[in-house]
Amino acid sequence: MGDVSTAERERVPKQDRSRATRQRLLEAAVACLAEHGWAGSTVSVVAERAGVSRGAAQHHFPTREDLFTAAVEYVAEERSTALRALFPQGAAQDRRAVVEALVALYTGPLFRAALHLWVAASNEEQLRPQVTELEARVGRESHRIAVDLLGADESEPGVRETVQGLLDMARGLGLANLLTDDGPRRERVVAQWAALLDDALGARH
Amino acid sequence: MGDVSTAERERVPKQDRSRATRQRLLEAAVACLAEHGWAGSTVSVVAERAGVSRGAAQHHFPTREDLFTAAVEYVAEERSTALRALFPQGAAQDRRAVVEALVALYTGPLFRAALHLWVAASNEEQLRPQVTELEARVGRESHRIAVDLLGADESEPGVRETVQGLLDMARGLGLANLLTDDGPRRERVVAQWAALLDDALGARH
Repeated sequence: MGDVSTAERERVPKQDRSRATRQRLLEAAVACLAEHGWAGSTVSVVAERAGVSRGAAQHHFPTREDLFTAAVEYVAEERSTALRALFPQGAAQDRRAVVEALVALYTGPLFRAALHLWVAASNEEQLRPQVTELEARVGRESHRIAVDLLGADESEPGVRETVQGLLDMARGLGLANLLTDDGPRRERVVAQWAALLDDALGARH
Repeated sequence: MGDVSTAERERVPKQDRSRATRQRLLEAAVACLAEHGWAGSTVSVVAERAGVSRGAAQHHFPTREDLFTAAVEYVAEERSTALRALFPQGAAQDRRAVVEALVALYTGPLFRAALHLWVAASNEEQLRPQVTELEARVGRESHRIAVDLLGADESEPGVRETVQGLLDMARGLGLANLLTDDGPRRERVVAQWAALLDDALGARH
């Protein structure tokens, strides 16, 4: 590293602290949204949950909309990274394991938080543009990961739509899990459609 | 009919009026929920929209929870009836037309209203039991209709789960349509999944 000035040495930990605060706020925001919905999720509630002052929270996120779209984006990125890490070789031999891992992305607290955000955005003009843009970005990234891990060849007719339909099914399974624990039924549906998809997608690429 | 008393003659139109009022309230409740979400949907707002006094609304539906679960149930039943009427012969030759009609159930204002109700119920203990029970009932009915219209033989292994996965996909497509008009993409996904389904289900029953 060589010589660094005292100012620089002090700056780095401060940046780290700031980043840690930001991350605590984002994680608290997602947990809050998943548990209490949009109406119960204010910047004050999130700041308190994160153990951060309201002023510090507003320094990072000037508006409630900024905080919650950033929160859902942050966790979506974490999940994408975790999903890729599950299959470090890329296209997996076992497509059923890939389908299970993709569906799992839509059944946890992140999906629940995202669902609250989508539904709130559908009625709140202030929230709608950011959430629509975020949703499109997360959707494209999920599609790219699914194609890679399934070893699907999108130059073949119908393959793109087959994978899109799988992600739509995963989203629908997430919604079915909102009010009741739908785990046992979901497992059977996933096993069946993983087999149908394996046939439809043909040889791995 | 024979002779009826004056009281009886007067009673019938009154019942009709009462039924018409109930129906206006239910339709206004669904429209309100789809447009304004749960937070913006009170008995007063619905009564005003339906052109009914608040007292009359409360006579039909003592609580807000009663009104909205009844509303979603009423429209779900109307939709099931309409769906069956589209294919009066039962199992259709053209499975793609059936898949399109099933998916259409999940992309209109009823689905949007139901979605607001589900998400609200996930955070509100007063609403949750009714909505969970309603959702299970509507889900079973949709499954039964889908099996009939697709001419699927559920005694074959995997067929039940194939149809369930289709309905999960339809639900996911409905959710994808919440913030943006997803029609053109949906049409391609539906065409592809209808073909996969047709292969998977085999001969019609």
